[in-house]
Amino acid sequence: MPPAKTPKPTSASGRPAPALIRPLVRRLSAYVPGEQPRIRGLVKLNTNENPYPPAPAVLAAIRAAVDGRLRLYPNPTAQQLREKLARRHRCSPSQIIVGNGSDELLALATRAFVEPTPPKPKDKPFRASRSTVQYFTPSYSLYPVLADIHGALRNPVPLRPDFSLPTVDALRRAKAWDFKAALTYVTTPNAPSGRGYTTAELDRVCRAQRGVVILDETYADFADQNALELALIRSNVIVARTFSKAYSLCFQRVGYLVGHPELIAALDKIRDSYNVNGLGQIAACATLDHLSYYQRNFQRIVRTRQMVALALQRLGFEVSPSQTNFLLARPPRFSAGLWHAKLRDHRILVRWFPKSQVRDYLRISIGSEPEMRAFLRACQLLLSTTRKLA
Amino acid sequence: MPPAKTPKPTSASGRPAPALIRPLVRRLSAYVPGEQPRIRGLVKLNTNENPYPPAPAVLAAIRAAVDGRLRLYPNPTAQQLREKLARRHRCSPSQIIVGNGSDELLALATRAFVEPTPPKPKDKPFRASRSTVQYFTPSYSLYPVLADIHGALRNPVPLRPDFSLPTVDALRRAKAWDFKAALTYVTTPNAPSGRGYTTAELDRVCRAQRGVVILDETYADFADQNALELALIRSNVIVARTFSKAYSLCFQRVGYLVGHPELIAALDKIRDSYNVNGLGQIAACATLDHLSYYQRNFQRIVRTRQMVALALQRLGFEVSPSQTNFLLARPPRFSAGLWHAKLRDHRILVRWFPKSQVRDYLRISIGSEPEMRAFLRACQLLLSTTRKLA
Repeated sequence: MPPAKTPKPTSASGRPAPALIRPLVRRLSAYVPGEQPRIRGLVKLNTNENPYPPAPAVLAAIRAAVDGRLRLYPNPTAQQLREKLARRHRCSPSQIIVGNGSDELLALATRAFVEPTPPKPKDKPFRASRSTVQYFTPSYSLYPVLADIHGALRNPVPLRPDFSLPTVDALRRAKAWDFKAALTYVTTPNAPSGRGYTTAELDRVCRAQRGVVILDETYADFADQNALELALIRSNVIVARTFSKAYSLCFQRVGYLVGHPELIAALDKIRDSYNVNGLGQIAACATLDHLSYYQRNFQRIVRTRQMVALALQRLGFEVSPSQTNFLLARPPRFSAGLWHAKLRDHRILVRWFPKSQVRDYLRISIGSEPEMRAFLRACQLLLSTTRKLA
Repeated sequence: MPPAKTPKPTSASGRPAPALIRPLVRRLSAYVPGEQPRIRGLVKLNTNENPYPPAPAVLAAIRAAVDGRLRLYPNPTAQQLREKLARRHRCSPSQIIVGNGSDELLALATRAFVEPTPPKPKDKPFRASRSTVQYFTPSYSLYPVLADIHGALRNPVPLRPDFSLPTVDALRRAKAWDFKAALTYVTTPNAPSGRGYTTAELDRVCRAQRGVVILDETYADFADQNALELALIRSNVIVARTFSKAYSLCFQRVGYLVGHPELIAALDKIRDSYNVNGLGQIAACATLDHLSYYQRNFQRIVRTRQMVALALQRLGFEVSPSQTNFLLARPPRFSAGLWHAKLRDHRILVRWFPKSQVRDYLRISIGSEPEMRAFLRACQLLLSTTRKLA
C-alpha cells in the first residue's frame, strides 16, 4: 500500500533538519582507521595484524560450528570464554567482560566512568576531573575520539621525548596531569612508539590516580612483561586485552577487560545484550586451548622485529626500542610522507600519521620474514635511487 | 617484575570507590535478554529465532572464508554488504549503516539524536522533547533501557487495547504523545503482540513527528507489507532491519538501518571502527544471494503460525493477530506464569514478561512443524491434567 499522500523523493530540499542530530555529533569528525585495501601482492604492514594465521585447530573449531546453530543467539555473557579467561588469569569470571573487539570496551568505559560535560560548564563551577579522559601522547588515537563522542574533556599529556613514561614526581611538577581524572588510558607497551613500561612504573601511576586507569595491553604478548596483576590487586585498574593482533583474530572482533567486579558490572549494565558474535566466542575459546602455537609465533615475530630494527638502523633509520609487533622509525634522507608514498608504489603499505607528533616517523608492522625482506629491499632501493638522483 | 610495594589482594576493603562509576550507571539495572539455555531436547520458542538453518550456500560461504584471512581486519564500513543492500532496497550505500546486530544501531541512534538530560533539569527550563525517547507500549523492551543508559527521558504511550496503532488525531487528543520527541521508536510489526501496521498509518505518524522516527522492522519479512519506502522518501524516518531472525543468523550479529544519508552519517561518526565482524559480513552477503531459500521459509513459518493460532484458539487461548514469527496468546484456565512454568517442565520454553502490561500473555515463537505439534500436545496435556485435578 502506498503512503497516504504521494511524498517527494529525497532531494536537496528533502534534507533532514539539522536539529535532528545532536550538536555534539554534528561537530564530530570520525576516527579514520588504518587502510584495509585488497591489492593483490600487497605487503600490508600498516595495521599491526599478525602475519601468521590462527592455529589450524582454531580454524577447525570455527568450521565445525558453522551449521544450523547459527540461527540461535550466542551466549549473551560469553560465559564459557569468560570462564576460560578467568582460569588463565587466575581470577573470577566476574572480573572479566568480553567485547566486540577491545574498542567496544574502551568506548563503554568512557561512557560508564566519565561524566559528559554539562551544556554550559562556564555558568557554574563544575568538577572538570569527573569529565576528563586523560592519556599520554602519542598513544592510541582512539582515546580523544572516544572523549569527543561522549562530550567529555580530553587531557593529553606528552610522554618524554624518547616515549618513556614521565615519573609521578615529574607529572606533579608539570601540573598538566590530572590525578583526579575520571579515566586515564595508558597504552602499554605504547603504540605507536612500541616502547614498553615496567609493571613497577605503571603501578606508581595507577596508585597516584584517584580515577579509573585502563592499561591498554593490546601488544603485551610481544613484551617482556605485562601488568595484568595490577587489575587483580588495584580496585581502580582495568587491563584491556584483545584476540585481534597477537591471536590472529582481527576479523572476528573479540577483546576483553579484566578488573574489579564492581567496575566490570558497571560496564556490563550498559553493553548490548549480545555484543560478542558466536563464532568469535568459539574462536577465542579454541585459541585458549592452543596457546603454545601462538607463543611460538610471538617468539618468531620478536626475532624478526630485532632483525628488522638492526637492518633499518644500518640503513640510517632512527628506530625506537620496541616491545610490540611493530617498529616506529624515523627514516633518513627524505620525509616520512614521501617514504610512505614511495613504499606504497612498491606495494608496501606502512602507517604514517601525518597530523600527529610522530609525523616524522613511519610505523612498520612486523610481517613474515619474506615480507620484511621485501620491505628492507624496497628501503634499500629507495635510498640508492635517491642517491643516484642526488 | 612485582609492583613497587606488595599490594593487598582484592577484598571487601579493596572495593573501588563508588564515585569511580557515574551515578547514572550506578542507578541502572541491566536489560535481561530471553534465556539461552542449552538443555538437550528443549523446544526453544522464547526468543523468536528462525527454526530453519541458514541456506546451505550461506554455510558453505562462511566455511570457505575460515582461513588465514581471519588475522586481518574486516572491511570497516561493510562496503560490499552495504552495496548489495543498496541494490536490494534501490537506494545508495550512503543510506545504509550496518551494525553488530540492530541492537547496536538502536543504541547508536539514541546517542546521536537524543540529548541527555542536564544534571539539574529543574533549575531552568529545558527543552524536554530534545531529551525524549518515545515509544508505544507494549513494544521492544530495549527502548526504555537505551533511554536510561543514555540519561534521556522515556515517553511510553499505550497502544490501543488490541495493540493497534492510535490515530494521529487520537494521539493529539490524548496529549501524552510528544510530536517533538527527539526519537520515536515504532516496532512494526509490533512485538510482543505480533500486530502489523499499514504503511499508510505509519506514514501518518512519521509525518506528524518533528524528530527522528525509527521503524523497527525486525519481523517485516513475515508481514504482508513493510514500510521501507518511508526511509527513502521521508528525511526523518529510519528503518531498522536484521539478519538475525528472518535470515537465521542471530549467532553472527548483523543488522542495518536505512535512512537519509545525513542521519546515517551521524551514526557512522559515533560507531566503533570495526563494528561488524568479518564472517558476519560474509554470511549476510551470501544470504542476499539466496533470498528465495529464505522466502520459502517465511511462507512455511507463516503457514505454521496460522495452524498454531487456530489450534490455540480451539484450546481456549485468546490469540492476538500476528504478522510475525510469533504469537501473543492469553492462556485459559490458569495464569500465564503457571503456564510458563508448566510448559518448561515439559521442556518447552516460551517467553513470559512477568512485570509488563502483557503479563497475562505468553509469547510463543513459531518453530518447526514438529516443534509446534509438541508444543500443542503439551498445552492439551496441561489442560486435561488440570481438568482431572479440578
